[in-house]
Amino acid sequence: MGDIYPQLRRDPIVDRWVLIAPERARRPTELEEAGHLAHHEACPFCEGHEAETPHEVYALRDADSSADGPGWRERVVPNRFPAVGRDADSAYGVHEVLIESPRHEASMAALTAEQVRDVLTVYRHRLAELQKDPRLAYVQVFKNHGAAAGASVEHAHSQILGTALVPREVRAEFDAAAAYQSAHGRCVFCDLVEREISAGERVVHAGEHVVAIVASAGRFPYETWLLPRRHSARYQQIGDAELNELAATMRTVLRRLATAAGDPAYNVILHTAPAGDASQFHWHWEVLPRTTGIAGYELSTGCYINTVPPEEAAARLRGV
Amino acid sequence: MGDIYPQLRRDPIVDRWVLIAPERARRPTELEEAGHLAHHEACPFCEGHEAETPHEVYALRDADSSADGPGWRERVVPNRFPAVGRDADSAYGVHEVLIESPRHEASMAALTAEQVRDVLTVYRHRLAELQKDPRLAYVQVFKNHGAAAGASVEHAHSQILGTALVPREVRAEFDAAAAYQSAHGRCVFCDLVEREISAGERVVHAGEHVVAIVASAGRFPYETWLLPRRHSARYQQIGDAELNELAATMRTVLRRLATAAGDPAYNVILHTAPAGDASQFHWHWEVLPRTTGIAGYELSTGCYINTVPPEEAAARLRGV
Repeated sequence: MGDIYPQLRRDPIVDRWVLIAPERARRPTELEEAGHLAHHEACPFCEGHEAETPHEVYALRDADSSADGPGWRERVVPNRFPAVGRDADSAYGVHEVLIESPRHEASMAALTAEQVRDVLTVYRHRLAELQKDPRLAYVQVFKNHGAAAGASVEHAHSQILGTALVPREVRAEFDAAAAYQSAHGRCVFCDLVEREISAGERVVHAGEHVVAIVASAGRFPYETWLLPRRHSARYQQIGDAELNELAATMRTVLRRLATAAGDPAYNVILHTAPAGDASQFHWHWEVLPRTTGIAGYELSTGCYINTVPPEEAAARLRGV
Repeated sequence: MGDIYPQLRRDPIVDRWVLIAPERARRPTELEEAGHLAHHEACPFCEGHEAETPHEVYALRDADSSADGPGWRERVVPNRFPAVGRDADSAYGVHEVLIESPRHEASMAALTAEQVRDVLTVYRHRLAELQKDPRLAYVQVFKNHGAAAGASVEHAHSQILGTALVPREVRAEFDAAAAYQSAHGRCVFCDLVEREISAGERVVHAGEHVVAIVASAGRFPYETWLLPRRHSARYQQIGDAELNELAATMRTVLRRLATAAGDPAYNVILHTAPAGDASQFHWHWEVLPRTTGIAGYELSTGCYINTVPPEEAAARLRGV
């Protein structure tokens, strides 16, 4: 199959794709299992260490500051150990890192409400920008917090990974939304929001623009989804008022999760519409706490075992 | 949704199922992350501690020994913390534990060739037995070794979990095999075996009855599949000669993996045909080393990032 990497390969049986990216094996792992970084002064993501990352591609920074110098609030740089590349043949794509704070904070939950809003604003900007590349079919925004969630760096950060392929799980959601739209003439996510607010038992937050619900069939204990009330296919369409409420809600969910579930590792992922006509989709965030491992049963079957009933999880998240 | 557990629930958007099983939260976790059990004498799976498990449902034991007493080589007991139940309404099923050795061994790789053959023989027996229950649509055999692979007990064991549902990933493989059969008039796994042996670069073992290949699009570094050369839909159809070679091959793969990849945690999973007409399927085992975590990108997209090219992994496994 040649030896140019990264490479995108399809499973010979099912429609499952894998990025073969030996470069990523070279990334340093400063986080041991369940451990924390001992020496913050060595962190390449802290303000003053800009020379230790590739040149920034975007930043929110002071008017009198310069690119790749101090004076920023949010900073986006190319991933030093990318899983895809603009020079890659089969694995075309972009892989960026968003550094969420100039100071060394370990969790998005520790950021101020303004910082969380800044982070969510930068996602909007990068998605709008990357949408201009016609070769990118999907751009995945995600966050790994803690070693058990796959993080190798402690400093709060997220990743933006765009590929020429619409990934399998995104495609499955998109197809399901399209099928529901055809069958019922409505959006499956809009109906879900309405049903969950009416039922009430899994609601964590129901605001003017944004709702947070514990997923009724969540894969993980305390799995929580954040959705806009307004039907909207692409995250980059989010308005400022929605963005403010989303930031406050995300911060609240993460802080309550830390209290209710013992400060777990977690992933935060965005599902937004792929390139092309996608009006039936409805963007949303999923917060996936990693209190329980992914074992052989889950890997073999795709069926998860969740040890905390979602209604109980929601009651605890509301009660904190 | 009621509060009778375990419960089987479907995701409101995609065809993904979750077992809500609060009982499993009560299971003791003797394994810390990356840690080992300190006091073997406290292990409920060791010979002489039979009273600490539920009554055995099957065992390979000495002729003069008694059920639930010492004198066994392999022992199957109900899982004390089941994810499904025969009394459960939506989550009907069986959940058993196979204790693989009377002595305290931590890995299947440490068992003798005869013990591994005994383990694989017991799987055959349990699958044939559980096949008689018409309510079970699929029986999953799997093994978690090491905390990073989801194990909570150190003593070598595997699990057998049967459900009334054919799980999503098994269904996907089965449907793909059926579609290939329709399109090409051949088995997709038979063709894979032929192609891989011909190419050679990912072959670890090619024997009379069994082949072991590193998966060309493996999700994990060193992911290795073991398949019978003979087309056979159900694992319980395995013959004794095949079983002997499978046992020797499984043991060799696990031992070489430990040497080549630094004794990683791993899962071993069986894919076999679901209940009903399934002649187009071809059973196989997958060894999934857990050297790299499952992070936000994988969870969100279903696309994995593998840092070791499969051809390199195969060369290392052959070279050990």
